[in-house]
Amino acid sequence: MRPFDLPLGFKYATAYGGIRKQEKDDLALIVSGVPAAAAAVFTTNRVQAAPVKLARSNMRASKGLCGAILVNAGNANCATKSGDKVASNTTKALAKLLKLNPNQIIPASTGVIGVELDENLILSKLPELVETLNDTGLPDVARAILTTDLQAKGASREVTLRRGAVRIAGVTKGSGMIHPRMATTLGFVMTDAVIPQTLLRRMLVRATELSYNRISVDGDTSTNDTLVVLANGASGVRPDPKEMSLFEEALTETLQSLARQIVRDGEGARKLVAVEVHGALSDAAGAAIARSISNSPLVKTAIAGSDPNWGRILSAAGNSGVNFDPSSVDITLQDVKVCKGGLAAPFDEGDMKLRLDDTDVSIVFRIAGKGKGNATFWTCDLTEDYVHINANYRT
Amino acid sequence: MRPFDLPLGFKYATAYGGIRKQEKDDLALIVSGVPAAAAAVFTTNRVQAAPVKLARSNMRASKGLCGAILVNAGNANCATKSGDKVASNTTKALAKLLKLNPNQIIPASTGVIGVELDENLILSKLPELVETLNDTGLPDVARAILTTDLQAKGASREVTLRRGAVRIAGVTKGSGMIHPRMATTLGFVMTDAVIPQTLLRRMLVRATELSYNRISVDGDTSTNDTLVVLANGASGVRPDPKEMSLFEEALTETLQSLARQIVRDGEGARKLVAVEVHGALSDAAGAAIARSISNSPLVKTAIAGSDPNWGRILSAAGNSGVNFDPSSVDITLQDVKVCKGGLAAPFDEGDMKLRLDDTDVSIVFRIAGKGKGNATFWTCDLTEDYVHINANYRT
Repeated sequence: MRPFDLPLGFKYATAYGGIRKQEKDDLALIVSGVPAAAAAVFTTNRVQAAPVKLARSNMRASKGLCGAILVNAGNANCATKSGDKVASNTTKALAKLLKLNPNQIIPASTGVIGVELDENLILSKLPELVETLNDTGLPDVARAILTTDLQAKGASREVTLRRGAVRIAGVTKGSGMIHPRMATTLGFVMTDAVIPQTLLRRMLVRATELSYNRISVDGDTSTNDTLVVLANGASGVRPDPKEMSLFEEALTETLQSLARQIVRDGEGARKLVAVEVHGALSDAAGAAIARSISNSPLVKTAIAGSDPNWGRILSAAGNSGVNFDPSSVDITLQDVKVCKGGLAAPFDEGDMKLRLDDTDVSIVFRIAGKGKGNATFWTCDLTEDYVHINANYRT
Repeated sequence: MRPFDLPLGFKYATAYGGIRKQEKDDLALIVSGVPAAAAAVFTTNRVQAAPVKLARSNMRASKGLCGAILVNAGNANCATKSGDKVASNTTKALAKLLKLNPNQIIPASTGVIGVELDENLILSKLPELVETLNDTGLPDVARAILTTDLQAKGASREVTLRRGAVRIAGVTKGSGMIHPRMATTLGFVMTDAVIPQTLLRRMLVRATELSYNRISVDGDTSTNDTLVVLANGASGVRPDPKEMSLFEEALTETLQSLARQIVRDGEGARKLVAVEVHGALSDAAGAAIARSISNSPLVKTAIAGSDPNWGRILSAAGNSGVNFDPSSVDITLQDVKVCKGGLAAPFDEGDMKLRLDDTDVSIVFRIAGKGKGNATFWTCDLTEDYVHINANYRT
């Protein structure tokens, strides 16, 4: 992870609670010196983990004020008898230690579903977590929240405004990108800017649409997905109305960086694939085509094999439900046109194979005509390792 | 393939035209002695192969009368400059040899997209195909139409009616079942029963809904999907009105058998998984849940690893868009209850692992309450071999 320019006024701690077998921190705590304006988006899955239900109700009860985020990895605390009790007892105990209202704590969990989570594994570590809170430990948090992820994921931005600088920093986890509907995504983003809660909420929704929802996590989500932004105002700098778009842009870029890192670290993935669609009749139509291409396992396996199989890309687009004329389509792979007007364009197979061996792959799907709709999605290749990881996860 | 009770009045031939590199028959011809009543369903993909477009227009022009089906494997004849001409010239040449109206020929192709198909490879073999037509060669047709399939797939039924027996026999191909939207499915079913064309069409639509559409091929299909039923009346037996449901049942069973064989032979698949949903508020809601479970790569990889990960099944159901109470759900795997009321039910891990090592896996998802909606889907496990096959298909 690259160095962070950390926002002021946040502290971090991690510990090993024994929730996962491997001895590697599985508990993380993020605390804001003063309760922060908070905005969050959660899973839309009908089956919701206990921490998601409690986080939602806490957010409502506190009117979007949050003093701390408590995370565990290794157990999703979902579909268990004691789930609600565990989420409630652990956040209440933490609130007592931090002298906060319990509804100012946001809990989050990731890991296996349907296995009882022993609350004592968390309760017994809370004092240690609170005692070891420090200014620099965000990278440790990034590591502690991982499950099958290989890489810790973080991103940060600094925005210089008329009244001074504000900082944004975030960490995330998530894997299983073949069909992201069931990868648990967690994301925690902190900023020291002064942002009113209602505005923060609107920014988060728009920024999520252009980042996490462009890796197809959107409507189809796991039981535990949680993305939180905290704005504690510790910089004392409130962007003026004209500067709010600068701040939102930096927030969006931070979320896009985090989202791309999730894809690049997709289970078994070796390549990050950017799918750009141009010339659709609307951005929404472009997004539907880009999503269909990004979700196609036949496209993703072809990329894994460095195979310029543009027919699969065209066919995946044809399944998007969007109306377009196949004979108006050009497809460019790694800057080489492989399909022109819906037909094969000649290219050097050896050269293309080398280009596709890169860890970054670009697919550009362009529809000729009057359409102005564009969209970019990110996906990853689908390798044998994905299957290996997922066939052996629980046991 | 098991022995066929072949319908009367059909002849079959196959040949190697050199369309695929491997020297293995890639051309197949099915001819009915007299033009047959024909019904067909085709892909709904926006990108449609030339043979699909021609088959549709031939079916319209002939008013559902068909004398022959001409199939090639190894090239989809899709997204190519000469596609329409190739489909048209080859069917016209065949019509001349068979003394049929060209619109009574249904063409079908499967294989790679975007590579020009040399019509001479087919034209030069048509005389040989016509000369070698024979009564017993349907199993050869089943083999000639395969692409990445490993097993030839056929099914047959005989139905004894008051006026005599009628026979149904069919062959099919299709693979890539991880996300069936892009597996090319071809299916050709022959019967010697006397069935009016409009009735045949209605039966085909209903039977497809309970078979090919229950392996999720439905709305999301490849550029070439084609399923044809021919009824040539050669038995002289017309089911009386009361017997039509017997015939439809046999047709449905034939299609279900073919569809299940496609799943069992899914790319890299080692297990056939039947997903049953009971207690949904409607059959459609049940089908949506069953489809969501069947399409989940996390469920499919867990089955590959003999891992009784019922949490993934519950989460996949939660993503179906169907409203249900998770705490009312029981999940049974291989006749063992692993989830009761949305929570873990105790089971013997060693015993379950052995049970899941079977080549046939049963998932039963039951919602307690007043719902009477049921549905069965078939899917397969997702193995490393799937990725291997698809990363290396084109080259």
